[in-house]
Amino acid sequence: MSFLREISPLVRNTFLSEKDVLLRLAAQIAAEIQQGERKDYIEVLDLSSGDLHRGGIKPITFVRQVLAACFYPALLEDDSLPLDVKERADDLLRQCDGGSVGSYTDSCGITKIKHGLSKFITRRDGGVPSSPDDIFITSGSQMALMFMLKLLVQSKVPCQTGVLIPVPTYASFNLALEDHGAVIIPYYLCEEQGWTLQVEELRRALHAGRKTCNPVALYICNPGNPTGHIQSRKSIEEVIRFAAEERLFLLADEVYQSCVYREDTKFESYKKVLSEMGSTISSTVELASFNSASKGFMGECGLRGGYVELVNLDPAVKEYTRILFSTRSSPPVGGQIALDLMADPPKPGDPSFLTFSEEVQSIKNMMCKNACRIQEVFAELPGISCQPLKAGFFVFPCLHFPPRAIKWAKKRQMEPDMLYCLQLLEETGLHVRPGCEYGQRKDSHHIRLLVATHEDIMEDALQRLKTFHMRFMKEFS
Amino acid sequence: MSFLREISPLVRNTFLSEKDVLLRLAAQIAAEIQQGERKDYIEVLDLSSGDLHRGGIKPITFVRQVLAACFYPALLEDDSLPLDVKERADDLLRQCDGGSVGSYTDSCGITKIKHGLSKFITRRDGGVPSSPDDIFITSGSQMALMFMLKLLVQSKVPCQTGVLIPVPTYASFNLALEDHGAVIIPYYLCEEQGWTLQVEELRRALHAGRKTCNPVALYICNPGNPTGHIQSRKSIEEVIRFAAEERLFLLADEVYQSCVYREDTKFESYKKVLSEMGSTISSTVELASFNSASKGFMGECGLRGGYVELVNLDPAVKEYTRILFSTRSSPPVGGQIALDLMADPPKPGDPSFLTFSEEVQSIKNMMCKNACRIQEVFAELPGISCQPLKAGFFVFPCLHFPPRAIKWAKKRQMEPDMLYCLQLLEETGLHVRPGCEYGQRKDSHHIRLLVATHEDIMEDALQRLKTFHMRFMKEFS
Repeated sequence: MSFLREISPLVRNTFLSEKDVLLRLAAQIAAEIQQGERKDYIEVLDLSSGDLHRGGIKPITFVRQVLAACFYPALLEDDSLPLDVKERADDLLRQCDGGSVGSYTDSCGITKIKHGLSKFITRRDGGVPSSPDDIFITSGSQMALMFMLKLLVQSKVPCQTGVLIPVPTYASFNLALEDHGAVIIPYYLCEEQGWTLQVEELRRALHAGRKTCNPVALYICNPGNPTGHIQSRKSIEEVIRFAAEERLFLLADEVYQSCVYREDTKFESYKKVLSEMGSTISSTVELASFNSASKGFMGECGLRGGYVELVNLDPAVKEYTRILFSTRSSPPVGGQIALDLMADPPKPGDPSFLTFSEEVQSIKNMMCKNACRIQEVFAELPGISCQPLKAGFFVFPCLHFPPRAIKWAKKRQMEPDMLYCLQLLEETGLHVRPGCEYGQRKDSHHIRLLVATHEDIMEDALQRLKTFHMRFMKEFS
Repeated sequence: MSFLREISPLVRNTFLSEKDVLLRLAAQIAAEIQQGERKDYIEVLDLSSGDLHRGGIKPITFVRQVLAACFYPALLEDDSLPLDVKERADDLLRQCDGGSVGSYTDSCGITKIKHGLSKFITRRDGGVPSSPDDIFITSGSQMALMFMLKLLVQSKVPCQTGVLIPVPTYASFNLALEDHGAVIIPYYLCEEQGWTLQVEELRRALHAGRKTCNPVALYICNPGNPTGHIQSRKSIEEVIRFAAEERLFLLADEVYQSCVYREDTKFESYKKVLSEMGSTISSTVELASFNSASKGFMGECGLRGGYVELVNLDPAVKEYTRILFSTRSSPPVGGQIALDLMADPPKPGDPSFLTFSEEVQSIKNMMCKNACRIQEVFAELPGISCQPLKAGFFVFPCLHFPPRAIKWAKKRQMEPDMLYCLQLLEETGLHVRPGCEYGQRKDSHHIRLLVATHEDIMEDALQRLKTFHMRFMKEFS
């Protein structure tokens, strides 16, 4: 007896991502090294995912001290913890039922933490008002995105819902859309112009999409994953105007908002730009903006804390959203606390301020240094071109393979960049992701690697990549 | 512009649960008290949800010490923490990438923790083997149940999937089923016989269900929420035999497995009973068994840690399950750690053993005492009958309202037990849930209240209930 025949077709369609081939190889190599097998390298270097701590970056002391005191309140009596840590922990515990982080919270998140987030947003956006009632805390920003898809997507043909999404984009979002029965309407970012978002391309994609489905939403990732680009204010305005004309709901994934590498570049939120566009647009375009404690300098992915802020939603729809959230359990309290600390970090004069600032600055410096180093190394390598790296956790260089390399991949029935990544991993122990997982223009090839890692690890990774790449290009030229 | 017209009909159908009326009233009363308004009581007593810490029970020290040391590893050098706490934290940190609980883990959970859970299951089931590969850790057991629904349910008519579920059952599960597009096939538990599950009733429900949908799964909650019953071995055997005959997938919600109040009563898992039923059945009936760190003596709901163990699944289906999980982010690490500590608590001889055992025993004693006290008080009250309370977090007594009370409720277009709960809350500050939220036989009425609370709170609650109930019955008799 088996219920295979019963399996939901949506799940059945979920393709066995090629990711696993690489993951499995990485695990196999690690096991071989542990068993004493000799390789040209002593360990696998994993720059495959957006995980700061995995990348060798230490957690922020203030964050972890507050968490420890919340979990084990006996530490509130501990003289070794700074006063502001203890005050914050005490304050947070007062927000928890029974004074315990082990209690359920409101399914949209702890009210006081939502207040803190709304203040953070107002500060970020130079005074644009934000209401805690429009903020929904979730177990990570991806979960918040899933909730929004649940609200927006109708999977029944003929009115199947379409969502415009960028190419490239991270693979799990595509899976989630398919999973919700949405039609993916791809729009291509313009690599040659630094992965910018072109309204003409949005228009082309939308009109193509309208032939097969009912496009209702436009998803943007800014700063971009995997591209490392950041939109200019002008570009954001154009997108908003387009959304207003075409009556599209904006899903703005802004989880990398605090990772900007260049002095001449500034993150501006969709909400802020929207608020300054005149009331016809600013009071009507519906927007969901996502943020997270996993990205940015905290990098607390394991805690699972994200949120969405809703702008211009019909009150009835907001009420539906609240009901939808209330059908689920509360988000993990650890993740909620991380969001609180992200929203309201130590201030000048606070006992933890100095250490906190030093730690954050050192992470920022390191990311900037890595970004420069990456550009430097790639500029020297033949067959690699890399757009200016401005923000986010990743870089997504283009690989110009010699025709023989492409033929060789074809023979093995594999995408050339996938084969490149497999060989790179096998020969040097460096684990990065192939562009084919994110989508790319036909006959273009990329790799994605993590920028947000310790500088020593980055240097090691770049050396491995360089050696392999030179050999690879020579072999196939 | 509004996208109301676009909202998924599944969400639109999600009813505005009556729960909110009570919740809102509770919040309003709390606010009035805070503003100095005088009431006959000094605070709201909340016995509405299954939350140990909200109910005044202190977290287990060992659990919280390990969590604190994992979050803030500087504590590994702290002399005030017991050695076994530090060893466990150190061991857990070694399982985390970058030695940080802030890293993503495998999306099915940390391998070593799954090993610990499989050992715990084997021990619980007297040696029945369990494999870590069959265990999937999630952000709470409800999430695991959602994953299984995703696998099982096809919402397209005419082959819409049906799931057999008990009446009464907790409301959010019904919402989740509707949300997945499943047809709910209700089967009634036999209240008169202590809320037992009768195979004849299952058969009736299944045959009725087959007229409108394709029933594929049978959901059981054992020990029961809200009923407080626990199935006998014989009853479990009957259900398994029925599932084998009718080729139904068993969803066994066993999150209350560690809460048994009576000496003559023992929890036996579906997996254990299944394994002892002869190979035709034991090797074929497909089973998913759910457990959680939120329930039981730990009560760590806020951490979000649950798991499902799959039994007899086709390897291809298990592979689909793995893929389905891999499309989502990893479960919160705090919840995973809680599961590890639940699965492998301190042993005799360990430095933390004595305190740990005392704390657990005191919680167990308190629950048993509450269970007795509840039965005692209800036995004395007119118009309340209560089945023997054997296990779980809740009691679900039947209220026999005088006809005048029912007329009075009808006039107000409300369920009588809802009106009872509203008045109880308003007059005494005691917050419990009405039976209408869980489903009940026509013209029967119940309330659900939490057993797992501090004994002083329980005594206070019972006194409030008693006073109100006597007045209520007198008023309407």
